[in-house]
Amino acid sequence: MSLFPKIDPPKRLLLGPGPSPVSPEVREAMSRPVLGHLDPIFLRIMDETMSMLREVFRTGNRLTLPMSGTGSAGMETCLVNLVEPGDEVLIGVCGVFGTRMVDVAERCGARVDTVKADWGSIIDPELFRRALAGKKYKITAVVHAETSTGVLQPLEEISRMVHEQDGLFLVDAVTSLGGAALHLDQWGIDACYSGSQKCLSCPPGLSPVSFNERALEAMRRRRQKVQSWYLDLSMIEKYWGSERLYHHTAPISMNYALHEALRAVVGEGMEACWSRHQEVHREFLREMTSLGIEPHVAEGQRAPMINAIRIPSAADDAEVRRRLYEEFNIEIGAGLGVLKGKIWRVGLMGHGARKESVAALAEALRTILS
Amino acid sequence: MSLFPKIDPPKRLLLGPGPSPVSPEVREAMSRPVLGHLDPIFLRIMDETMSMLREVFRTGNRLTLPMSGTGSAGMETCLVNLVEPGDEVLIGVCGVFGTRMVDVAERCGARVDTVKADWGSIIDPELFRRALAGKKYKITAVVHAETSTGVLQPLEEISRMVHEQDGLFLVDAVTSLGGAALHLDQWGIDACYSGSQKCLSCPPGLSPVSFNERALEAMRRRRQKVQSWYLDLSMIEKYWGSERLYHHTAPISMNYALHEALRAVVGEGMEACWSRHQEVHREFLREMTSLGIEPHVAEGQRAPMINAIRIPSAADDAEVRRRLYEEFNIEIGAGLGVLKGKIWRVGLMGHGARKESVAALAEALRTILS
Repeated sequence: MSLFPKIDPPKRLLLGPGPSPVSPEVREAMSRPVLGHLDPIFLRIMDETMSMLREVFRTGNRLTLPMSGTGSAGMETCLVNLVEPGDEVLIGVCGVFGTRMVDVAERCGARVDTVKADWGSIIDPELFRRALAGKKYKITAVVHAETSTGVLQPLEEISRMVHEQDGLFLVDAVTSLGGAALHLDQWGIDACYSGSQKCLSCPPGLSPVSFNERALEAMRRRRQKVQSWYLDLSMIEKYWGSERLYHHTAPISMNYALHEALRAVVGEGMEACWSRHQEVHREFLREMTSLGIEPHVAEGQRAPMINAIRIPSAADDAEVRRRLYEEFNIEIGAGLGVLKGKIWRVGLMGHGARKESVAALAEALRTILS
Repeated sequence: MSLFPKIDPPKRLLLGPGPSPVSPEVREAMSRPVLGHLDPIFLRIMDETMSMLREVFRTGNRLTLPMSGTGSAGMETCLVNLVEPGDEVLIGVCGVFGTRMVDVAERCGARVDTVKADWGSIIDPELFRRALAGKKYKITAVVHAETSTGVLQPLEEISRMVHEQDGLFLVDAVTSLGGAALHLDQWGIDACYSGSQKCLSCPPGLSPVSFNERALEAMRRRRQKVQSWYLDLSMIEKYWGSERLYHHTAPISMNYALHEALRAVVGEGMEACWSRHQEVHREFLREMTSLGIEPHVAEGQRAPMINAIRIPSAADDAEVRRRLYEEFNIEIGAGLGVLKGKIWRVGLMGHGARKESVAALAEALRTILS
């Protein structure tokens, strides 16, 4: 066959729902020499990565590590390890990722009940209260920042209700981790997963997860094996722990990238990261208002790092996004599901959560929409 | 917390069971700007990658793509998509990876029978003949190059027997792909998986898989959903196919690396790659013989890219490997399972399958063992 040319990707400003912009330092880290997955130097990099992840998750959980897959693999990791066939699971659904959790949990054999909200609103904690009053659930799960709608779900009240019933509280922090306050230990989150490619500004490919002792205890009480070998934490923790038992070959270069990305986040400090995302979010809203573009989500419910805005009635959805790519090298996200053609999703995540990003997008939209 | 220093991995000569040495060009590809997973330019990179994978697998299979996980995720992909609870599956076991297939298949609800050989021998095709004569199996699975023992299993005869019975033939080509002759279409292999980190010399993190029409038909006839959402090919093929339906965020940078690694393999040509691995393997055996080190596997059964050699009785296994790391920056692999402490595993894979690798290792061993 004839040879394809070497790839030559342009430098896009990534303001979609992820991947987020990756710094030159993180990209450079991936180009470093590859080590073996049992090399003593790589083992040290693993230990440092777990230590930084604990800081980012605000947890002391021993089992805090990056799974070798993207955020959706993290979702599946939490559910396959915690759910056994017949388990009762309650899931909050107000967008694509809550819907996905239901699908994954059902594939694990869970009996799933849901509490719902319109796509673009948070789920009223009262709905959780009523559901939890009516039935005992092993696991209650909710998405922190729903990437498909731009909503940030408050967690603490739901957590209290779940624990009054002695259930496990599982949180999807794929998009929120590093971009909004999240305190695993203080808020009583028993299991949590995230992705490397959102506010951590590492390329996609890894999924940090964290399990506390209550979640580990549920794993230990299982009557049957975890249905996924690849995501079985009882084996994976023996590689990331002191035993160093080979499970699968870790994605070495991706782990280099995550280490460097975490160095940046931890170096800035979590509170500073969260504030920066909030400030850039406010700047974005000011700019959109000046363009006559409205946020889709009500004030007080907005996720700062993923902004849903209503497509102006005069604008052609696909055409605007195509021109942003071609003329301005900017990516924003389309709406999904019921919001397709109605909203754009603007990610201001990690390295991309800067006023310069907002200014560049506002200027481009001003040109295209004029 | 105090900041960890930037990583600074040394340049090791990776002659273990994988990851294999990665060329500077492939490492550089990972440092290129990250694109979105629906960016038209990334979609073209995906199409080119599938096209090159077809060349490498020697297949016309439409569904030929890299899964977003390591080789073990590829194993699980094939089994979760093909197996339904209660299905009869026959697996050849003569090492760690055949054993792993049994575990994964059982987690999918398969009723598994095995045919076995000692660790270090191929499985006699006669054993498959007897097993297949006695029962109808939906799937028969075998490992091509058993990474834990250094054995290369002949496939064509088994394939013919499986198809006489109208079963599906599944092959683990994690370590063999690119390093030994493998012809998916010509040999009647219905489903196959591999890894990026062996003879393709890409970092670990992706797993190329290929399904032919017979395997796809088995997927379409399923009575229930695939138990893994993350590895469900019926959804993933809609992202890699013309529909471009979002499933999960592809590991962009890893896909850049695979594209560049495949360019090198396809540019060299498959026959040339296979011959080079064979030549370097012979050179390695000559050098080991001159050191008084014996191969563990009988002639005619040896996998050229993964060489099992017997640890000389006077040598201290762990100490030799430690000195190879520390004094020579060379990695070789320890024995696994019943072969722990008895063999070393020397990978001569992809970019590492060069006479210079053999010379460097022979010289180092000569020094250490003298």
